[in-house]
Amino acid sequence: MSPEYIVPLGTSAAVPSGGRHFASLAYVAEAYVVLFDCGEGTQFRLIEAGIRTSRIRVIAISHLHGDHYLGLPGLLSTMVMQQRENPLVLIAPAPLEEVLALLPGIGTERRPFEIDFRAIESHFTSGRVYRNAPETSVGTGGFSITAAALDHTVTAYGFRLQADDRPGNLDVEKAVGLGVTEHDDYRALKSGKSVQATDGRIILPPDVVSPPVSGSSFAYVSDSRPCAAATELASEVDLLYHEATFGEDDRERALATGHSTAREAGEVAARASARRLVLGHFSARYPDAEVLADEARAVFPRVESAKELERYYLRNPDPPS
Amino acid sequence: MSPEYIVPLGTSAAVPSGGRHFASLAYVAEAYVVLFDCGEGTQFRLIEAGIRTSRIRVIAISHLHGDHYLGLPGLLSTMVMQQRENPLVLIAPAPLEEVLALLPGIGTERRPFEIDFRAIESHFTSGRVYRNAPETSVGTGGFSITAAALDHTVTAYGFRLQADDRPGNLDVEKAVGLGVTEHDDYRALKSGKSVQATDGRIILPPDVVSPPVSGSSFAYVSDSRPCAAATELASEVDLLYHEATFGEDDRERALATGHSTAREAGEVAARASARRLVLGHFSARYPDAEVLADEARAVFPRVESAKELERYYLRNPDPPS
Repeated sequence: MSPEYIVPLGTSAAVPSGGRHFASLAYVAEAYVVLFDCGEGTQFRLIEAGIRTSRIRVIAISHLHGDHYLGLPGLLSTMVMQQRENPLVLIAPAPLEEVLALLPGIGTERRPFEIDFRAIESHFTSGRVYRNAPETSVGTGGFSITAAALDHTVTAYGFRLQADDRPGNLDVEKAVGLGVTEHDDYRALKSGKSVQATDGRIILPPDVVSPPVSGSSFAYVSDSRPCAAATELASEVDLLYHEATFGEDDRERALATGHSTAREAGEVAARASARRLVLGHFSARYPDAEVLADEARAVFPRVESAKELERYYLRNPDPPS
Repeated sequence: MSPEYIVPLGTSAAVPSGGRHFASLAYVAEAYVVLFDCGEGTQFRLIEAGIRTSRIRVIAISHLHGDHYLGLPGLLSTMVMQQRENPLVLIAPAPLEEVLALLPGIGTERRPFEIDFRAIESHFTSGRVYRNAPETSVGTGGFSITAAALDHTVTAYGFRLQADDRPGNLDVEKAVGLGVTEHDDYRALKSGKSVQATDGRIILPPDVVSPPVSGSSFAYVSDSRPCAAATELASEVDLLYHEATFGEDDRERALATGHSTAREAGEVAARASARRLVLGHFSARYPDAEVLADEARAVFPRVESAKELERYYLRNPDPPS
């Protein structure tokens, strides 16, 4: 039912090591891709993941540390070269707009597409920063992104991507049997309105349409200390991607550098009643991130450490047809 | 005798394609590495090439198009994380200094090493931009870098790296036979000074020292139309790396975009009496760069198209000992 998945493109903290790359994560839905963070080399990781840049509708940047945004100028430059036409939504801390304007030689002054820059100002604490209208009258493909200020060494934001609920399926055979034969009536029923059948009877949506399916949800928290804003973003989410730069042995270091331990990430997932937790943003001190997943598992069972370029589905993927 | 070689780290023009990466090339000598250009992802390419960033003494940036410099902020940031201590020489068009100062989150304000920024001002045409003093009194390891303004769509510079001549080898046995036994006298003879033997005779350097070996030389020309400045930089050079973005079929496009065809690069090498030509900066239109080398070969025989991460020696490498 819900084919959305995430692909961690880079799971490294600060210094690339052990085959890990700088922070970036693609959220892939049928009709669009949302990119969270864009560390140096992200455009190459997208190629390796087989995700065309033309599919990216939104890029959300968590904070202005180099390992989270230095791939953005190059990605925009490549989009210019590729003659992208569709508008691009860019959600980021406000100062990034000026940075992009000052960088020479990235060609964005002659770009053939619009950048809808949603600047997050420094006084922002939490709220919706983007709403994507549904593609059709029955609500397919709509989603919202909310942001919330986290607890890091610089201003940093976490994000929640909430897909709209999907309308249920219409049982056409049953509708015809009840005397509803017009396409407009089918559409009305699917969008929750009642219609009149040929014999004058009023047909209500539940008579012929299965219940709506709740939209899937995803939260991205990197970089941050564990905090209430993270828990709020991740509330009952299908999948939470949370940074886990360190293990318990480095708890003091996590505190000093504004990062989380794996166990702390697990505690956020537990408090938020998240369905699934994927850890990322690993320090080079942890060549094997499984030890971090183990530490988180002590407080939250459904946890994995992110493997780059693998798919993590928000819900069970469709069985192969 | 001369183990210097170059390693093309990225040979792509503008858009990465077919496994090619953004412009960057490492010149590797025994005691140091000089990096020419630093496109996005260069720090990953250095890891793949097995070149430690701590060995880089100089970075020279040809021009401020994104594909030639966007990897620099991340590389500097990584050098900060790695607690580099040795000074770094940065040769680049002057505006880059301000760009680096304005970029947030790259940590260079708390770097533990000095950046010796050699800003090339817009009125500069040609001349020496850096001189590395030799490591020892007999002149090993010294080199100079000269720059010259090229002919591109924006201000762009080519570079020549000229290693100092190496002193010849002292025949100690012969020197002892002539009555020269002091270490200081050997050093004086190697540095070209005559000395007095125990019997009072004057011993001249050619009596006991083989002729000096001319220092190797390398020229880097990217991006540019063929021009006199490129020929001058490449004069009798051991190896010229010249951009060859297009083939003859795209000659008009080369002219319009300030680039060279492979044949034009060959003509520069021929006019300069270069010993060897390596082509790079290939347009995505040429998935097989061998066709470009073939076009250049019509006017200059000793030409190859660059393969990323391979070594190209400036002179014959030492035979395995």
